[in-house]
Amino acid sequence: MIIGGFILTALPFSLYFDSGDHFAIILSAICSSLTGLIAWLFSKNPKNKELGKREGYVIVTAGWIIISLFGSLPFVFQGAIPNYSSAFFETISGFTTTGATILADIEILPQGLIYWRSLTQWLGGMGIIVLSLAILPILGIGGMQLFIAEVPGPTKDKIHPRIRETAKRLWGIYVLLTGLEIILLLIGGMGFFDAVNHGLTTLATGGFSPKNQSVGFYTSPFIQYVIIVFMFLAGTNFTVHYYALHGNLSFIKNNDEFRFYLFFIIGCAIFITLLHLKHVNFDYEESFRQSLFHVVSLVTTTGYVVSDYENWAPFSRIIFFFLLFVGGCAGSTGGGVKIIRYLLLFKNSFLELKRLMHPNAVIPVRINQKAVKPSIILNVQAFFIIYMLIFIFGSFIMSMLGLDFITAMGAVATCLANVGPGIGAVGPVANFAHVPDLGKWFLSAFMLLGRLELFTVLILFSASFWKK
Amino acid sequence: MIIGGFILTALPFSLYFDSGDHFAIILSAICSSLTGLIAWLFSKNPKNKELGKREGYVIVTAGWIIISLFGSLPFVFQGAIPNYSSAFFETISGFTTTGATILADIEILPQGLIYWRSLTQWLGGMGIIVLSLAILPILGIGGMQLFIAEVPGPTKDKIHPRIRETAKRLWGIYVLLTGLEIILLLIGGMGFFDAVNHGLTTLATGGFSPKNQSVGFYTSPFIQYVIIVFMFLAGTNFTVHYYALHGNLSFIKNNDEFRFYLFFIIGCAIFITLLHLKHVNFDYEESFRQSLFHVVSLVTTTGYVVSDYENWAPFSRIIFFFLLFVGGCAGSTGGGVKIIRYLLLFKNSFLELKRLMHPNAVIPVRINQKAVKPSIILNVQAFFIIYMLIFIFGSFIMSMLGLDFITAMGAVATCLANVGPGIGAVGPVANFAHVPDLGKWFLSAFMLLGRLELFTVLILFSASFWKK
Repeated sequence: MIIGGFILTALPFSLYFDSGDHFAIILSAICSSLTGLIAWLFSKNPKNKELGKREGYVIVTAGWIIISLFGSLPFVFQGAIPNYSSAFFETISGFTTTGATILADIEILPQGLIYWRSLTQWLGGMGIIVLSLAILPILGIGGMQLFIAEVPGPTKDKIHPRIRETAKRLWGIYVLLTGLEIILLLIGGMGFFDAVNHGLTTLATGGFSPKNQSVGFYTSPFIQYVIIVFMFLAGTNFTVHYYALHGNLSFIKNNDEFRFYLFFIIGCAIFITLLHLKHVNFDYEESFRQSLFHVVSLVTTTGYVVSDYENWAPFSRIIFFFLLFVGGCAGSTGGGVKIIRYLLLFKNSFLELKRLMHPNAVIPVRINQKAVKPSIILNVQAFFIIYMLIFIFGSFIMSMLGLDFITAMGAVATCLANVGPGIGAVGPVANFAHVPDLGKWFLSAFMLLGRLELFTVLILFSASFWKK
Repeated sequence: MIIGGFILTALPFSLYFDSGDHFAIILSAICSSLTGLIAWLFSKNPKNKELGKREGYVIVTAGWIIISLFGSLPFVFQGAIPNYSSAFFETISGFTTTGATILADIEILPQGLIYWRSLTQWLGGMGIIVLSLAILPILGIGGMQLFIAEVPGPTKDKIHPRIRETAKRLWGIYVLLTGLEIILLLIGGMGFFDAVNHGLTTLATGGFSPKNQSVGFYTSPFIQYVIIVFMFLAGTNFTVHYYALHGNLSFIKNNDEFRFYLFFIIGCAIFITLLHLKHVNFDYEESFRQSLFHVVSLVTTTGYVVSDYENWAPFSRIIFFFLLFVGGCAGSTGGGVKIIRYLLLFKNSFLELKRLMHPNAVIPVRINQKAVKPSIILNVQAFFIIYMLIFIFGSFIMSMLGLDFITAMGAVATCLANVGPGIGAVGPVANFAHVPDLGKWFLSAFMLLGRLELFTVLILFSASFWKK
């Protein structure tokens, strides 16, 4: 029902531009809302039972699939993407804030649909913030317990009011930043429609652009820097924003993840700039801007592009490939493995050398000056291993479906991390149209798995979940 | 001094074939032994102090480097490999049982040198068995403590006699298996010289072959099956052989690692056979034999080849690439990450789903029906992460030195895992001659790191090692 309502917000754009998609929009809204209404009427919870963890997993996973099933209707009804596999791929790529597209020419799409496509990402981003900062920590997924103490708001309440309170505060920040970016883009000279679309998809670290050339269409350095800054903010833990807005800067200063994120991005950007200057020989500012842009875009899992980074220095490809595995901060809209997990794994790995020299000492990993329990590290390790297993098996499957070595690995890596563009035939200037339908369904599944931190989905397939 | 003695064992082959390398062999033996003698005379340990852990790390790492420095002399003196970087690469590739070669034409080498090249691997394999089953568990490296209880022999003694006792028993098995393989190869119709060389390099999971086409030169299915069986045995934990020889079959039946190793290899071989039959259409037996051969060769990190597996089914490349990351069993001569570590990481990962459903239960990982302490899992996780970091940074470095994407990743993966051939321009029918000298030194370092289970080398670079 709610999705139906959101589809309707595309109507003003459709009518203003007279883009001819108003009929598809209205029909989709009616279909979605009607199905929702019927389901709602027939599924009252008679005992008003408090929701448990088990229900939580089912609701989250099923929810993302259902909104994608209905969210793809406008594309199908209007005829812009007649193949349902492709339409579903495009929509779940939106709701998971991935940004992988099957559209070779985005600009021929009616404006109403372009806006809806961007809105799917923004809504997905909203969902992710609440999921990662309020719901997953309660469910105990993938080390997310680490943040339980850091989420502002009442912590000892029941699940229901706590989620609501957290959501309200963080959504406020999300809306605020989106509005701010749109205003800055307008100041930079971008048209209103494009500014709204970029605002929606930047904050979601989604990366759908209304332009075929993505952000590369806008050569203005100001616009590119604005987008870099907001991609960076979107990839930051939203509790950091919360504390920053309340003037608590010591929280940010002591946040290991944020520091690592900041220095990692700057370090990579400088490194790539140096290589870029040596091999391609742009001017300094442009080299740095383009390098920084792509590092931020890939690390935050946004996926905007300003140029074909595959044709930079001879080995830029390998760097950008590995950047697909990084991911934003936990509690941001960014996907991927995420900075905090790497930080934990790296710290533990290097401490192991110390432990070898002092086998009887207990040397715990410390994050934000607090010792982390071994059980959380085991949990994070499990996440990382399963992530890699899915990547490996996914690459097998995609290459069995006919994709070449590099494209197969690139496609799976980018979908699993919710980035968008990969390398090879799904690179920055290509798209996913040529992937066979079966492959699109697999990639859709990988987007969902990645977006829901693997365990939320995988637990539904485990025996212990269904046992009484 | 010992290396000097071993170099001399090449003399009979040199004289028998009149291959003209006797002078280089004698000169190298003298140089090595003389240096050793001088060092020994000037470095008496006056207090007869028992060796500590700290000395253990230094001896192991320095030992491998020193024998490689002197072991490369015959190649240089004879002029077969005039470039010292290449000669060192070839020799450390031998002593680390890797099998990566810079020789495009092996058959033009004098027989004395061919034999010495094979012997470096056999000696390396001997060193590794003792290292992994007697020394590393004491040092506490990378989860090797897991096997401490399983090593036959006195366990409560001082380090010195224990290592000696373990070494004697396991070396006996090693020599026995080598002899057995040579006899079977002779029965299969292989010439004496080739049989000796293949025997030496199979048991070491080394993979140097006296033939340019590697084992592919011998089309006899019997010979290929014999080599498959002995590669498999060489990649098995040698304590399994010890118990098998003593009739203790329940030990083998309850050995999780051995079971996983066996079924993984059979599973992969059947899978690849099916793809192979579909795409290349050999006959059943040949397809299965070649698939099994390469799976065993890569998983055990031997690196023999019978055909160019890169040109099999379109995606065989991606499968063989990932097989480079598997590795043999712990306590075998195989390199790589090793089966036991994956088993631990996988078991822990899947248990995590169970732990999510029962957050208050303590659910330990069990290997061979015994619970594994979390500290060991953290140690194994650290190993895996550092392994991947070296792989990633190594790939960067190699691609900065001019190798293409696939070749760079293949070269680092194969050297770090001590396999031998990689993919791309260092694939099964290619060699490492074209890698720039600096790249050869880096790859040599990766071979050493991988062979010595990373930590043995890395700890020398840690601050806590050098602190009092």
